Amino acid sequence: MRHALGVEYDGSGFSGWQRLNKPGAPERRGEPTLQAALERALAFVAGHRVDTVCAGRTDAGVHAACQVVHFDSDAVRDPRGWMLGATSRLPPAASVLWCLPVGGDFHARFSARARRYRYRILNRAIRPALGRQYLTWERQPLDAAAMHRAAQALLGEHDFSAFRSAQCQAPHARRELQEIAVRRDGEIVEIDVQANAFLHHMVRNLVGSLLPVGRGEAGEDWLATLLAGRDRNVAGPTAPPDGLVFLGPRYPAGYGLPAAVSLPAETTA
Amino acid sequence: MRHALGVEYDGSGFSGWQRLNKPGAPERRGEPTLQAALERALAFVAGHRVDTVCAGRTDAGVHAACQVVHFDSDAVRDPRGWMLGATSRLPPAASVLWCLPVGGDFHARFSARARRYRYRILNRAIRPALGRQYLTWERQPLDAAAMHRAAQALLGEHDFSAFRSAQCQAPHARRELQEIAVRRDGEIVEIDVQANAFLHHMVRNLVGSLLPVGRGEAGEDWLATLLAGRDRNVAGPTAPPDGLVFLGPRYPAGYGLPAAVSLPAETTA
Repeated sequence: MRHALGVEYDGSGFSGWQRLNKPGAPERRGEPTLQAALERALAFVAGHRVDTVCAGRTDAGVHAACQVVHFDSDAVRDPRGWMLGATSRLPPAASVLWCLPVGGDFHARFSARARRYRYRILNRAIRPALGRQYLTWERQPLDAAAMHRAAQALLGEHDFSAFRSAQCQAPHARRELQEIAVRRDGEIVEIDVQANAFLHHMVRNLVGSLLPVGRGEAGEDWLATLLAGRDRNVAGPTAPPDGLVFLGPRYPAGYGLPAAVSLPAETTA
Repeated sequence: MRHALGVEYDGSGFSGWQRLNKPGAPERRGEPTLQAALERALAFVAGHRVDTVCAGRTDAGVHAACQVVHFDSDAVRDPRGWMLGATSRLPPAASVLWCLPVGGDFHARFSARARRYRYRILNRAIRPALGRQYLTWERQPLDAAAMHRAAQALLGEHDFSAFRSAQCQAPHARRELQEIAVRRDGEIVEIDVQANAFLHHMVRNLVGSLLPVGRGEAGEDWLATLLAGRDRNVAGPTAPPDGLVFLGPRYPAGYGLPAAVSLPAETTA
């Protein structure tokens, strides 16, 4: 039977989501991954080896408010048993938020219609102390309104090669950017992005190219120019992982998942 | 010359604000304090030993958005030099936000007219992972509106002996509670408290007695009853430090401190 679960994590102490060892082999020393930690916890509850597939593989240091995962197990446990049992075997930096049985046609990665990320920048002269695990620091004043306007050129379906890491393994770079919003709240500049799917490092590369616009070093048309040029080498550097949170994926309402990871019913018609 | 400075810190890895060693003596092993770290950093910038006085001594594990400190030094440094120099010598968990010259009549502790604290509770079945350093976890559903109503009985000047720790060294327990607000934002229950000054453990003890009201184990009149009884032994347990942030003190506007720690000009007339 297939199960879907939501997991929250603080990625600070992890080498990212993806397991670096082969399935079943011991974890590499000093390189803890969230996938290995979760599979170990689920195996304890299931009583057999568990393999997981996630909605979005996050990089080292990137956090998640609701990563979604699926796995198969015929072990008979109620949803609460999976949730509490797995959480009790996870390190304090990760918690299982919910666990539900789903149809065999559900796939955490391929069934997702959208993914949402949030990037938070502390924009002040002095580095962050409180909450520094969840913030990227930028000391030069940022014009958030200019960043917002510049970012709107990215909306729609495009070839995002300019914002794709050299290690990206996706067969092509076409993605549909469904929303991008930059807003300031006091000293915090927050960037919300939603797309059908993301390329490797795409959010951090978008942010890395929005920062020069915010600092006034590049014009508001720079993002449009970079997008059209499709050349990663002329775009901004990859922004640090600290400020990035994977808010979660969205699935068609028919799967019966929690509202936070479901699209409104009418959208799925 | 006297200087005032604002400092932000993540109290997770510290044994509280107050220095445990004697001035000038080496810090006690394995018991880092914020005061010792700050005095060491300021001494480096000043070129001489520096003693500090703070607005509110926070307990082990308690955070601060803007602790205010004063110290005396005749070293000639501009405000930016103190701020950047001290921050560069502080551990990553603390940052100096600003530093300004003040009159010799300014006293970080005695000049403060009000202090504000915020306590944040994650109210859900599963323990927090993301942001867990800054949250207290309560798994039983809390009625935030009932907690808010119950708390209003504490407003005004009272003897707060019921909410004072046994270690409290204050000469008396009369304090003026100026504001207390409990509100829910999704899974977070947030408690904001302002008083002229606080007794040792007072905020955590107030929260510890509001929790039974929120869980429905005590009636909304319980806080009033406890206050009138002045007996610490019948009140709720001390709530954990994790969810507590010292937002900062407030001084009369005449000292010329940043707006975040100043009262509006008319209030000081």
